[in-house]
Amino acid sequence: MTENNEYNVIGKRVPKVDAREKATGAAIFGHDLRLPGMLEGKILRSKRAHANFTIDISKAEKIPGVVAVITAETYPHVKNLGFLQDNPALKKGKVCSYRDEIAAVAAVNPETAEDAINAIEVEYEDLPNVCDIEFACMENAPVLHEHAPDNILKHRYDFVHGDPEKALEEADFKVTSTYRLQYVAHCCMEPCFAAAQWDGPDRLTVYSTTQIPHLMQRDLGRVLGIPAAHIRIKQMVIGGAFGSKLDTYPYEIITCLLAKKTGRPVRIAFDREEEFIASVTRQPAVITVSHGCTKDGKLTARIFDAVLDNGSNSSWGATTPHIMANPVSSLYKVENVRMKAKMVYTNNAYAGAFRGYGNPQATFAIESNLDELAKVAGIDPLELRRRNFNEPGETTPQDLKITTCGMKECTEAAVEAIDYDKPLEEWEGVGFANMIHVGGGARIYLSDGSGVTVKVDDFGRVVIITGATEIGQGTDTAMAMIASEELGVPLENISILNSDTDYGMWDAGVHASRTTFIVGNATLRACRMVKEQLIEAAAKKMKIEPGKVVFEKGVFYPEGGSPEDGMKVDKVARSMHFRRQGKHPMATYYYDPPNELQDMKTLKGNVSSTYAYGTHACRVKVDPETGKVKILKFVAAHDVGKVINRQGIEGQLHGGIAQGIGYALMEDMVFEDGKLLNPNLLDYKLVMARDMPPMELIFIETDDPEGPYGAKGIGEAGLIPTAAAIANAVESAIGARIRDLPITPEKVLAAIRGVK
Amino acid sequence: MTENNEYNVIGKRVPKVDAREKATGAAIFGHDLRLPGMLEGKILRSKRAHANFTIDISKAEKIPGVVAVITAETYPHVKNLGFLQDNPALKKGKVCSYRDEIAAVAAVNPETAEDAINAIEVEYEDLPNVCDIEFACMENAPVLHEHAPDNILKHRYDFVHGDPEKALEEADFKVTSTYRLQYVAHCCMEPCFAAAQWDGPDRLTVYSTTQIPHLMQRDLGRVLGIPAAHIRIKQMVIGGAFGSKLDTYPYEIITCLLAKKTGRPVRIAFDREEEFIASVTRQPAVITVSHGCTKDGKLTARIFDAVLDNGSNSSWGATTPHIMANPVSSLYKVENVRMKAKMVYTNNAYAGAFRGYGNPQATFAIESNLDELAKVAGIDPLELRRRNFNEPGETTPQDLKITTCGMKECTEAAVEAIDYDKPLEEWEGVGFANMIHVGGGARIYLSDGSGVTVKVDDFGRVVIITGATEIGQGTDTAMAMIASEELGVPLENISILNSDTDYGMWDAGVHASRTTFIVGNATLRACRMVKEQLIEAAAKKMKIEPGKVVFEKGVFYPEGGSPEDGMKVDKVARSMHFRRQGKHPMATYYYDPPNELQDMKTLKGNVSSTYAYGTHACRVKVDPETGKVKILKFVAAHDVGKVINRQGIEGQLHGGIAQGIGYALMEDMVFEDGKLLNPNLLDYKLVMARDMPPMELIFIETDDPEGPYGAKGIGEAGLIPTAAAIANAVESAIGARIRDLPITPEKVLAAIRGVK
Repeated sequence: MTENNEYNVIGKRVPKVDAREKATGAAIFGHDLRLPGMLEGKILRSKRAHANFTIDISKAEKIPGVVAVITAETYPHVKNLGFLQDNPALKKGKVCSYRDEIAAVAAVNPETAEDAINAIEVEYEDLPNVCDIEFACMENAPVLHEHAPDNILKHRYDFVHGDPEKALEEADFKVTSTYRLQYVAHCCMEPCFAAAQWDGPDRLTVYSTTQIPHLMQRDLGRVLGIPAAHIRIKQMVIGGAFGSKLDTYPYEIITCLLAKKTGRPVRIAFDREEEFIASVTRQPAVITVSHGCTKDGKLTARIFDAVLDNGSNSSWGATTPHIMANPVSSLYKVENVRMKAKMVYTNNAYAGAFRGYGNPQATFAIESNLDELAKVAGIDPLELRRRNFNEPGETTPQDLKITTCGMKECTEAAVEAIDYDKPLEEWEGVGFANMIHVGGGARIYLSDGSGVTVKVDDFGRVVIITGATEIGQGTDTAMAMIASEELGVPLENISILNSDTDYGMWDAGVHASRTTFIVGNATLRACRMVKEQLIEAAAKKMKIEPGKVVFEKGVFYPEGGSPEDGMKVDKVARSMHFRRQGKHPMATYYYDPPNELQDMKTLKGNVSSTYAYGTHACRVKVDPETGKVKILKFVAAHDVGKVINRQGIEGQLHGGIAQGIGYALMEDMVFEDGKLLNPNLLDYKLVMARDMPPMELIFIETDDPEGPYGAKGIGEAGLIPTAAAIANAVESAIGARIRDLPITPEKVLAAIRGVK
Repeated sequence: MTENNEYNVIGKRVPKVDAREKATGAAIFGHDLRLPGMLEGKILRSKRAHANFTIDISKAEKIPGVVAVITAETYPHVKNLGFLQDNPALKKGKVCSYRDEIAAVAAVNPETAEDAINAIEVEYEDLPNVCDIEFACMENAPVLHEHAPDNILKHRYDFVHGDPEKALEEADFKVTSTYRLQYVAHCCMEPCFAAAQWDGPDRLTVYSTTQIPHLMQRDLGRVLGIPAAHIRIKQMVIGGAFGSKLDTYPYEIITCLLAKKTGRPVRIAFDREEEFIASVTRQPAVITVSHGCTKDGKLTARIFDAVLDNGSNSSWGATTPHIMANPVSSLYKVENVRMKAKMVYTNNAYAGAFRGYGNPQATFAIESNLDELAKVAGIDPLELRRRNFNEPGETTPQDLKITTCGMKECTEAAVEAIDYDKPLEEWEGVGFANMIHVGGGARIYLSDGSGVTVKVDDFGRVVIITGATEIGQGTDTAMAMIASEELGVPLENISILNSDTDYGMWDAGVHASRTTFIVGNATLRACRMVKEQLIEAAAKKMKIEPGKVVFEKGVFYPEGGSPEDGMKVDKVARSMHFRRQGKHPMATYYYDPPNELQDMKTLKGNVSSTYAYGTHACRVKVDPETGKVKILKFVAAHDVGKVINRQGIEGQLHGGIAQGIGYALMEDMVFEDGKLLNPNLLDYKLVMARDMPPMELIFIETDDPEGPYGAKGIGEAGLIPTAAAIANAVESAIGARIRDLPITPEKVLAAIRGVK
């Protein structure tokens, strides 16, 4: 908690550089965008979970102000979206969920577009709903897609290390339980948005809130059947994403098609209800976990079996087991591990990426189950964990190479902060959970890298150009701090450009907590290259050897001289520029971390170049009359490698913990026969400021050798162990285990009544 | 006129890459810009040419919807603008012209802003108008500015080479005449625009139609008293500039101050009338020229004396003699030359840069005077010119180093095209004029350079990032063609980014016909660096030596192999990117031409790295009843070095000739006591399409050794000799010389009556 004096800027508390423009309304979000001649696009979605349909758009087309109405017939050669390319932007003849897109209109204003949507006539021929994964897996269940006659995705996961079945059988103590994780919504402040504009037959500009601009460029080229070289993605200021914008979705393709059809720019902007119904969710799961241990609490076996409701189509939710494998294989030392997962098509919503991906689900199941094991084994749950801590230098069953590891330090710091030894009052409980997550990128593509250009102009303005994406996580501020640290210029002199595939260099997108680590490394190295150029120029100007130049706080002066007689960055920059063959101090660095693509079958490989650890601990009090859980204190101790922006990392953790508490106690998308019953922020309960408990954040600085200044990525960590820690604390308070999230007062009361 | 087969793209006719977006309304000009919360700014201008005033803004401030009213008192520390820093953005206590800014308002809409302007109460105490340069120069004339008690700018020009007075005296033939050049307006399609937005106390973004983004950044910093490092200039799509946006003006500062005062974005957008009254003009001049020659027509002396009406303040108009010195010293071979110029403060409008700067004025005077000399000497005017042609390899009296020179070829081609030997009918005349102009940049700043980055993404999209400015002259297209030529990718794959000081590298701005030459050279060299990278990557992929790689039309293949088996640019780019330490093919090149800053006193120095020549010839028919001049045929033969975009260069010349014809025959800003009487396009006569004569364009390709593919800059050339050629043709038709532009029917009739 002490500020780091080694650096001038790094580790300090710095308000976000984009805070002011966001707070004052100056920032231009997608929903603020108005292009000349822009039309409003709207999508007609299915009114059934599962049905065949026919459609008649003739009345809609005749409404004055309607410029285009399109269906699957309009552009038959457009290709499918989705991880398994099973998702046409516009569905043809059959719908498999309430979110299914069956037609779209572009009109001169939203009201007319809405009228046109209402004037489209659809006749449905109902098919039996398949909204339950057990029903979907039955023999002779109605089939959603021809390519999956058993409703199960071809793509399956089976990870194994050692002989877990044998180890479990031979374990001194063992326990098996099933945990159920619900649908939750990202609830980004800004709902989905896209705008598209064509310049001629196949040059396309898309204004987007995507997290993956460069991959979106590729996706759009493939799906629309035009060269990706003709496509430019301009990101708007993004009002939160949390993984929800990690894929390319039907509404984005539809926006492009409407713009194509009309020859005018078209936007599609969801309202909150459409956001709930038609954006992706966190992947729900039913997870059965078994653990076995020796008499002294050494873990010997872990078997993890997940069944995922894949919904009607496959977005990234279908790949969450890939990330589940990380904690399953590597959270604590367990020699014998198996993870199996299958994904089932249903007529429900489909899931995407959401902060932590499959890790919050897996960690909830594993850490809940460990407490259950501790109870069976008669070992203090904290002690059980201590006996199985991960350690620096280990290689895990998934072949993750652990460099630095602050699990022990995090746990002990949390133990102290939560005052573990303090006796519990009646209905009071205390719980812990640990986590591991990628902290140094996650290679899921040929490149996990990022290119950064740093330029210093004649006035000492430093511009950082990157392909990275600021979704509110504070990347811009972290990069500005790195440049400020390296080049000794104030933050006000620094400009970050990062929202355009044309000027931005390749970046794999915002995911896997990678940005500060990857882009930070690229920025740091590019800044250092620029610094070398400046030192050389200063040496030339001062007529000394570069090795004799001292550079401190933005001033260059000769060794043994005084900073007062020195030259500032702008002056040195001008001396480089205003001479024969002059140029701005400028450098580009591509940082691609030393991590590996995992084998798709074995799931093994060192996917990240470092790993983040953390411990959440909380003390709760349960009201036995109402079943309400009150968190008395919440402690989050995280191995962050090194703090870059103290205020930023606090914000990340506060936000993560809030989402974790919501996941644990409140948030739940309630579906009935595939229909979402609470698509609004009144009925869908988010954690609000007033719900937040007293929090203590602890940063363990393990100084990662690969991280920028030693930092690890920490964007997702904040919510990964939260729900498990709360569930364990509730169990500690009421003596009963709740295995289904969210832990609502109703479930708590039922549990209390069942036990006491 | 033949297409060049040496290249695939260079020299071809290519429609502008931005034509479609401009034609369809997709382009976002300044006037289209709407920022969230943006206010409308308006300026109150003087209702007198010369007066002291007091001001009361209290009523205006009380109007609902008015957010700010500012005067010179509001920000007293703001510094002056202008070449001589004699121009406060808001005038204090005294006005010196009708355009003088005395207050400004920001309001929620234009109507309210207008109401507020009308509610500002100004009391004027009239001072004697000084609207005539002779009156201004009289002893005891009323003084405009304390710093110039004789109303004459300190800054004067006196260029001399040889002994021109003696040479004139000794000449066999000599002639002296005085020529008067009028005020003309740029008449950009888009009137002036600026918008400003502050982020906190001193971070400023300006949306601008400036031609000099990087120098504007510097200007704004100096004038507003904030670090230029805190300023970002974003250029909008610009609807014409022609030099009018080469300076930073009061309305731009006022926009920033209103935005500062209100804390909201503010825009100021001129309407056509304000554009006429308050934007700069071409510099009017009274020029007395003497020429002397030997019996056989060898020019021996030229004396050129210019008096410039500087108007109330100094913008770039005050520096036009600097450019006049170029033709005065170097158009034809003349050993003994003098140029003197003085600038006089008056209560008239002030001038700025305008296509050709002082060259059209000087060339009109010189080329008219040469015809007069030819008459006196009894030599055919064409023959007189032939005997004094400039030639390759010469060093002119101003120390201009002539590398390539197509003056002879241009003249002879024009002679043929205009069918010089064809006998003239009654009232028909034929005239010629030549020109020299900078064609390889013009160093007026420490750097005359430009930085260009070229990047190739994974899909083969080529992005060219420059600090250059597209004002409609076709730079983007020329750069795209260069990249297409070098990298073998279609134009559709190329994107040009050039409108933002943050991502753009330094560029000295659009002036001096420099962009295709300077930025073209930078683009060409950056492309070639990228090509080297690609060849190396292709060699690696093909496992051969780079020297064995053939690169043709975007395909890399092994020497002796076939293009069909080759790799395209995108594939090679991916092979460079998707490997360890991978990166995009990308390079930055700063091209700064080998030219010199001229000595401010002697005006000598090789200001450009090459020079453009051209000949205009025309055949006219005068209607003796109406005095109307009809151009029967117009020929423009230009030494362009090499044609880059044939269609683009045709467009440049058509536009230049149209402006030249307007200058010669129609355009005239009529002032009465400092007040402009025709501030609209009904009363100010522009040349329209129907007024254009049959034209023949001839491109002489002298293959300049320094130019990109041999090209010279040609943006301004098109209008430089036009008026002189027309005046000479009119003299040829009516036998009388008209020395004052424009050559209106009234003047022609008067001349005819005076002679015949």
